Amino acid sequence: MKSINASDIANMEQRKRANFINSLSGFKGANLIGTTSVDGIDNLAVVSSVFHIGANPPLLGMIMRPHTVVRDTLQNIKQTGEYTINHIGREIVEQAHHSSARFDSNQSEFTELGLTVLASEHVKAPYVAESNIRLGMQVQDIQLLAINQTELVIGQIVEVQTDSNWLSEDGYLDIEAAGSMAISGLDSYHSTQRFGRYAYAKPNEKVRKIDVVSGK
Amino acid sequence: MKSINASDIANMEQRKRANFINSLSGFKGANLIGTTSVDGIDNLAVVSSVFHIGANPPLLGMIMRPHTVVRDTLQNIKQTGEYTINHIGREIVEQAHHSSARFDSNQSEFTELGLTVLASEHVKAPYVAESNIRLGMQVQDIQLLAINQTELVIGQIVEVQTDSNWLSEDGYLDIEAAGSMAISGLDSYHSTQRFGRYAYAKPNEKVRKIDVVSGK
Repeated sequence: MKSINASDIANMEQRKRANFINSLSGFKGANLIGTTSVDGIDNLAVVSSVFHIGANPPLLGMIMRPHTVVRDTLQNIKQTGEYTINHIGREIVEQAHHSSARFDSNQSEFTELGLTVLASEHVKAPYVAESNIRLGMQVQDIQLLAINQTELVIGQIVEVQTDSNWLSEDGYLDIEAAGSMAISGLDSYHSTQRFGRYAYAKPNEKVRKIDVVSGK
Repeated sequence: MKSINASDIANMEQRKRANFINSLSGFKGANLIGTTSVDGIDNLAVVSSVFHIGANPPLLGMIMRPHTVVRDTLQNIKQTGEYTINHIGREIVEQAHHSSARFDSNQSEFTELGLTVLASEHVKAPYVAESNIRLGMQVQDIQLLAINQTELVIGQIVEVQTDSNWLSEDGYLDIEAAGSMAISGLDSYHSTQRFGRYAYAKPNEKVRKIDVVSGK
């Protein structure tokens, strides 16, 4: 095994370090964030930093870096208080990745990439019709992380749109069956294959697999 | 498509809601957090909430809920300022999941689960020898998220231990080749299959795949 220490990392060329460090947290969810500007221009951005904060109330966080390609997304979220999270499936990987290009603020990525806006009564932000799992979000808090000037956006899930075929009786949603992709690093997309679901673990019992029975 | 709104979510039975909401952020990294108590007892906990905050300095965050099975991990991090993040590979999925059981504070999950402590000169916290990608972390900040009383632990990467066979010239680390697993929901483990790596996207160019050439 090779050991790469803090000084090796500090001395890496910037783009190489970005590729390397972005690989280290493990696999990440592949999501498209949908927003609308105050002028009514829809926006999409691929984001791999969505994470779970809590189930009750249902909260998700995401890290956004100001002054980068997500600047329109961040501004729209601040001005409208709403956004959507749309899982990226195999069929829309290339369009989703293309959304990370620097389109002008007055261009809608939906139009440029050929994705379809889906409206909802629960949020004003646009859903991606081609996505199989769509979340409507209301901003609850935005915190500046002083350590590196990124922003932590905390939102509450106010709607979930999905197919009940992927929903198990115990609440588990089979995102693999839905075709949701994973991301590694900055730019690698992966499909998944279930290794196993496991029952709640106890100290003195062997762990055991549980079935995934969807369609509830 | 089915629409599940805020009131449907609020009315779900607690365990069902936990399974459901934990499925929604998409795939997550499968990591074992290694710590040592001030009394010298090693601890392991499976955590699926590690996320990227920044590359320079190299920072990762994770969300921890006090008073749960990770209470020992969180206390050790606060008292020692250090922890390790160890990718969970296929070979150690069952042991890793077993670490989520409520072992006593004076039991080491390493001993109970048959995993091997690996020491390093860069961090005092223990690595998992069976893991193929191991990160040594120093705490930089711990923030209480007032919205639901969870804690955001921000750490800086001070060492990366891995095999150079998985490292590309451009810095990308092939975590799929290393066997790192993804998690969905609370308890489902998945292997991955690369769909494609894509070059930096530009507005008026078709996206194109790039090769993964490791071993640098």
